[in-house]
Amino acid sequence: MKEYTVAVVGATGAVGQKMIQLLEHTEIPLKKVKLLASKRSAGKTVSFKGTDVTIEETTDQSFEGVDIALFSAGGSITTRFEQAARQSGAVVIDNTSAFRMDPETPLVVPEVNPEALANHKQLIANPNCSTTQMVVALKPIHEAYGLDRVIVSTYQAVSGAGVEAIEELDQQNASLLKGEKPQAAILPSSGDKNHYQIAYNVIPQIDLFAEEGYTFEEWKMINETKKIMGLPDLKVSATCVRVPVKYGHSESVYIEIDRDDVTVTDLQALLAQADGVIVQDDPANQLYPLATESEDKKETFVGRIRKDPDVANGFHLWIVSDNLIKGAAWNSLQIAETMVKMKLI
Amino acid sequence: MKEYTVAVVGATGAVGQKMIQLLEHTEIPLKKVKLLASKRSAGKTVSFKGTDVTIEETTDQSFEGVDIALFSAGGSITTRFEQAARQSGAVVIDNTSAFRMDPETPLVVPEVNPEALANHKQLIANPNCSTTQMVVALKPIHEAYGLDRVIVSTYQAVSGAGVEAIEELDQQNASLLKGEKPQAAILPSSGDKNHYQIAYNVIPQIDLFAEEGYTFEEWKMINETKKIMGLPDLKVSATCVRVPVKYGHSESVYIEIDRDDVTVTDLQALLAQADGVIVQDDPANQLYPLATESEDKKETFVGRIRKDPDVANGFHLWIVSDNLIKGAAWNSLQIAETMVKMKLI
Repeated sequence: MKEYTVAVVGATGAVGQKMIQLLEHTEIPLKKVKLLASKRSAGKTVSFKGTDVTIEETTDQSFEGVDIALFSAGGSITTRFEQAARQSGAVVIDNTSAFRMDPETPLVVPEVNPEALANHKQLIANPNCSTTQMVVALKPIHEAYGLDRVIVSTYQAVSGAGVEAIEELDQQNASLLKGEKPQAAILPSSGDKNHYQIAYNVIPQIDLFAEEGYTFEEWKMINETKKIMGLPDLKVSATCVRVPVKYGHSESVYIEIDRDDVTVTDLQALLAQADGVIVQDDPANQLYPLATESEDKKETFVGRIRKDPDVANGFHLWIVSDNLIKGAAWNSLQIAETMVKMKLI
Repeated sequence: MKEYTVAVVGATGAVGQKMIQLLEHTEIPLKKVKLLASKRSAGKTVSFKGTDVTIEETTDQSFEGVDIALFSAGGSITTRFEQAARQSGAVVIDNTSAFRMDPETPLVVPEVNPEALANHKQLIANPNCSTTQMVVALKPIHEAYGLDRVIVSTYQAVSGAGVEAIEELDQQNASLLKGEKPQAAILPSSGDKNHYQIAYNVIPQIDLFAEEGYTFEEWKMINETKKIMGLPDLKVSATCVRVPVKYGHSESVYIEIDRDDVTVTDLQALLAQADGVIVQDDPANQLYPLATESEDKKETFVGRIRKDPDVANGFHLWIVSDNLIKGAAWNSLQIAETMVKMKLI
């Protein structure tokens, strides 16, 4: 049986740490795990299956003997090292936005479009976290009833902006509880000019602003959803909002389908059977997905399924998943596992 | 010049306290302010314009000589005392849901439907907080371009659930920062069976569940919007969500209008002129409404105005206002001021 050497690029980041945790339980037969990060982190050790693994600096030579390279260290690191990794023979699975919309690069959620992996050129893009969990729920609905339109408002956790944003939320909460003025230096986007308090607040900006008054995060949801689902004409619009939550993105998703005769019960039954989905939808018992309950789970949770009182083909869904797991680390590793199973690596 | 005696029923509540603050600056000539609450709070004093006012227990006799009674002590208190108040000659302005959908009772936001006040029978209902701020922004759009459809997802502050919910959020944050398990006894709804952590979480339930899987809060937004705007056929659907914010409801509002040729600039210019609205919409300078900035302000803030990339008559708005001020105390007092100006009291 073939054994694989897997590299994690960005091993000290919020997503990288989750990748290492998940790799301890992967079904891929492992020869070796290689942990790569910036020079600053090189030399630190991380426990992996009871053994200390030393973090190495990422260089062009790091990828010798590597079969699978999971990148999650920012777009500039992917751009800098993906060619070296591919030339060394590795398959790169990239959790940044660098190649997601590149027509040559498959953008894959294994429950949705695993077939796109077949045409890989040693580079597969992992979608944006908020997109991934949404398409897991929307794919079965499209297959059964035809999806015409999506309008989504998100409630996104700060961990999507990295370890420093998590610390910022805690520090601001602590300051405010002491009656002190909170300091803001990271959110909404470390690369932007102004920073706003996220504790006891919501910020309707994720990533920088781009065309037409939409943020890059909103464009990612719009464009990536169309690409992953293979529906360039699907109507998608998005409002992306940061909330003072550490882990777990919640989404209020409104859809219109092609049929007028579908019931809430139909959708519940359909989603209960869907790959990677857990339906939590029992209003009488106050059962609905909660961000805190999604933590460290691989599944996407769907509830609050309701029909628009005025529009026969319109439905609401409340979709929650751990943004660092299915939204990032798990989807990347799941792509790798799927490719190994498909004998593509 | 006529002088008025104003009673605040529920003077110790989150909304009652704001009513007292706002009454200090009202343009209504005041003869006297009467502060009413439950027996438990009777005897406490509250400072009003530098004088201590003693809180009295609410009884049928409390309303003698009262011209205007601002009720905000829960639907059961309104039901119990509104007749006594009206029989004493007071005009009741009620901030509970008890009479909002009663066809005999005007449901009023002064910027939107002041004309409905003319037919009052000494009882006017103040709308639900999340509805009020939304219709302030939607009314001018409907008048200019015709409104066809509204889909709203809310980000609602815990103060909407009262003083105890504010304390619960602080206590949970403090517990979690100490690494302790947080206690939940109030949210999502003190009257419901299960209580969930709101700190570092979002809860897609406000008020109890009702028909068709919608909560009462969601039905309030749907039905009250149609009534206030006088548009029974307007399509409205809502998802109401509690977030760990103390003051200020934020709303992601999607609308469809009757015309295809309206631009974002048109909407910005229109709303900049609208009564009670402040436009904060400059992505290049990261200017958009924030809950923390809305605190203690009477206005409704609107930003993130964007056209749906795929639907020519579809637009997004981000609408924020202080739920205790415009959403409750100020709208109630503003109704009173408007009635005095219209010589209806």
